Amino acid sequence: MAEKIDEKKVTPRSQDFAAWYNDLIIRAELADYSPVRGCIVFRPDGFAIWEHLRDELDRRIKQTGARNTYFPLFIPLSFLQKEAAHVEGFAPEVAVVTHGGGKELEEPLIVRPTSETIIHHMFAQWIHSHRDLPLMINQWCNVVRWEMRTRPFLRTAEFLWQEGHTAHATREEAERETLTMLEVYRSFVEDFLAIPLVAGRKSAAERFPGADETYAIESLMPDGRALQCGTSHYLGQNFARAFEIRFLDQNNELQHPHQTSWGVSTRLLGAIVMSHGDDQGLRLPPSVASTQAVVVPIWRKADEAERVQSVSRDVVGRLAQAGVRARTDEREGVTPGYKFNDWEMRGVPLRIEIGPRDIAAGEVVLARRDIPGASGKSRASLAEVAATAKSLLQEIQTNLYKQAKAAEDSNTRQFDDYSRLRAQMADEGGGGFADVYWCGSPQCETKIREETRATCRAIPLNQLKDRGGRCIVCQESATERALFAKAY
Amino acid sequence: MAEKIDEKKVTPRSQDFAAWYNDLIIRAELADYSPVRGCIVFRPDGFAIWEHLRDELDRRIKQTGARNTYFPLFIPLSFLQKEAAHVEGFAPEVAVVTHGGGKELEEPLIVRPTSETIIHHMFAQWIHSHRDLPLMINQWCNVVRWEMRTRPFLRTAEFLWQEGHTAHATREEAERETLTMLEVYRSFVEDFLAIPLVAGRKSAAERFPGADETYAIESLMPDGRALQCGTSHYLGQNFARAFEIRFLDQNNELQHPHQTSWGVSTRLLGAIVMSHGDDQGLRLPPSVASTQAVVVPIWRKADEAERVQSVSRDVVGRLAQAGVRARTDEREGVTPGYKFNDWEMRGVPLRIEIGPRDIAAGEVVLARRDIPGASGKSRASLAEVAATAKSLLQEIQTNLYKQAKAAEDSNTRQFDDYSRLRAQMADEGGGGFADVYWCGSPQCETKIREETRATCRAIPLNQLKDRGGRCIVCQESATERALFAKAY
Repeated sequence: MAEKIDEKKVTPRSQDFAAWYNDLIIRAELADYSPVRGCIVFRPDGFAIWEHLRDELDRRIKQTGARNTYFPLFIPLSFLQKEAAHVEGFAPEVAVVTHGGGKELEEPLIVRPTSETIIHHMFAQWIHSHRDLPLMINQWCNVVRWEMRTRPFLRTAEFLWQEGHTAHATREEAERETLTMLEVYRSFVEDFLAIPLVAGRKSAAERFPGADETYAIESLMPDGRALQCGTSHYLGQNFARAFEIRFLDQNNELQHPHQTSWGVSTRLLGAIVMSHGDDQGLRLPPSVASTQAVVVPIWRKADEAERVQSVSRDVVGRLAQAGVRARTDEREGVTPGYKFNDWEMRGVPLRIEIGPRDIAAGEVVLARRDIPGASGKSRASLAEVAATAKSLLQEIQTNLYKQAKAAEDSNTRQFDDYSRLRAQMADEGGGGFADVYWCGSPQCETKIREETRATCRAIPLNQLKDRGGRCIVCQESATERALFAKAY
Repeated sequence: MAEKIDEKKVTPRSQDFAAWYNDLIIRAELADYSPVRGCIVFRPDGFAIWEHLRDELDRRIKQTGARNTYFPLFIPLSFLQKEAAHVEGFAPEVAVVTHGGGKELEEPLIVRPTSETIIHHMFAQWIHSHRDLPLMINQWCNVVRWEMRTRPFLRTAEFLWQEGHTAHATREEAERETLTMLEVYRSFVEDFLAIPLVAGRKSAAERFPGADETYAIESLMPDGRALQCGTSHYLGQNFARAFEIRFLDQNNELQHPHQTSWGVSTRLLGAIVMSHGDDQGLRLPPSVASTQAVVVPIWRKADEAERVQSVSRDVVGRLAQAGVRARTDEREGVTPGYKFNDWEMRGVPLRIEIGPRDIAAGEVVLARRDIPGASGKSRASLAEVAATAKSLLQEIQTNLYKQAKAAEDSNTRQFDDYSRLRAQMADEGGGGFADVYWCGSPQCETKIREETRATCRAIPLNQLKDRGGRCIVCQESATERALFAKAY
């Protein structure tokens, strides 16, 4: 059994990033491939990460005043067709139910790719007066988009997400809500998932179908490709008009509300794997790790076992009391070395080793997952083990962010020469973030996309405080910088 | 605005139980009808009850050792056909996806009506040795069954549920798991939802398609009809054979594992509404109420308002500190009487009234939702308000159970004369639980069903400790009593 790990060694990340990513997900038992095209199975260790993430984000979303709901999975095909841009964007990738209860349906139903249409249909029943606004709802659910190329977590035919939908009396209030949720996502992903982000506006070409403005949080993965981690849309009055949502304002005049929608998905699990993982396996931020500290009892002689296990359980008790999610690994028939490798693969942030000599010295060894070898090890007395573990977990959370941020920074480059941008993106392995002046024209954006495969990921909210410059493509004057990258 | 409540008065329960039930759900804003046939929209107040219920049950399920997962929504049609009884049971009510991404699919996909088939397909990949057992997983998800007649919460085309699936090395262990989960459900529904239950075995006719044995928790609604609130199935080796799940046992011999599945659904929301509601509206058990106590500040003169509101907020703070979910109702333009009616409709267990005279006396008035009028009112000083509220909420939780239990008991009758059973069930309004000796033969069961519309709801686990008797239909000797009732 001790050989098992070697048999299933993961592809080194430097050798083949995509293979490494897929290997890690299978080996760490986060997910498995399913017999349904493009759909995966979330195994317990993978789903537990989602649960930690979901519970915390749910808490933060509710703090903004939105409340949870649940709308039907199925949407009449005709609903999708009510908003012109929306149907154009989603019609090509919907799954269609044509039969139910043994009969052909009179009108086909689509499986929701997103729920604006059915939710706004209901909003029209519920909104009559300015007193009914703002209306702010959220739902956690599954959605289906029939994608051609799928990757576990990153792009699957079915995925889990939350989608928030709000209606407001004024444009200003809806725009503020759009940016409030973008900031909720940014702080959540940076603080809780330890993933550095750029928050910005999307170009018109990259907007959500039916939105007036789309904002996103984007992260750069270690292979130099960008991953969109969440979006927040200002929908204007487009859907309100299409679904005839109207309210009497304070002057007793009928108005269409201004609306928003915003979402993040199980794609965030892919971001965690890619941002933090290494050749030894996952590295989970303590915030989302079901096991934050694993205690490995070590003994050679049978008469040592009982004492070592008893101290190990005592340590788990002390950790639990201090709010640390901890467990012991008392498996028999496998070596401590096997256990070390196994928990490293699963990404447990902190390992605590307890052997007879440690007990004699009244100490335990704490080994950090984020710092390999001797430099990641420290010792603590039994009395101090819980406090030490808590403080180390905090350091690990911070350090994972720092490491990822350093990688992102080192792979973000300013360009003012288009040929250099092209050369950088010609790199098969990625290309990083290209930070350039762009005039904002679709022509220049298209030229970059077609010639380099890099797309406009974001026009960052935080712009340099300089006097503007010249578009990297056409050399016309440009007032904003944009980040281009090849993307997942 | 104060007229609104009268305009939308609910049908009295005694006049038309079904209309009362539907009115309550709409008026209390738990749910709304959707444009999709047989599907409802869960509004925030309804979904919040589900969230409280789900979080607590999830905790109890995890305590048994099961872990959460997520499997695909879609199942290849051929999977359904692998287990003969299963396909016969579910094929007539599946929704079928025939097109995806603009093309006709090679093999149609069904939208899961339950997930045994796809989960057992994956179990076959994961289970190899007795060391992989027991395998115990659960998932919270949506399922679709194309029902002909639907009722909000009770029977909808799409509903939310949890489904647990386990595999064990021995028959004994799987049977024990089936009964363990039945008991988890029983104690959860009785303790947390305050709904009295009978736990029992199902007759062969009422078994889950593909199971060797089905157990259920059944509750009697106030209209005399039974509601199945949850089921736990011993699947034997039926699915293990169909999906070729095999493990090497400790003697190195290949065996099929023994399996179970178990679930409860959003139907429980319907059970809460029916079991506890009255003509004034919902009555929520404190355990599932998002607002356990609402503080209504009462004043006449403008100069009283500030003082009353300030004390009201202070009381909410004291309640929150004591772990009571509380809020004030500071709405303007509606009378205190309107607010009282509104919160009674929404089922808030405890109302706290605070007016200038109460403040002068250093007291507040607490009004229980479960006891109408003066007898449900008491007073407490500000210093004691939190402790009093906590203790009243506990009493309300217990009392709601007692009231429902008394109603169930008064509508449960033992019969040994078949003509009396028939007469009782002829009552259009229900019929209650009929507790009878039954020989166990399908013929006698069918006769009862066809002649009285009552079905065998459960063969209770707790049997009378007598010497047996004679079947109510055929007069042959019978060793077990069974509960028959007309059912939802």
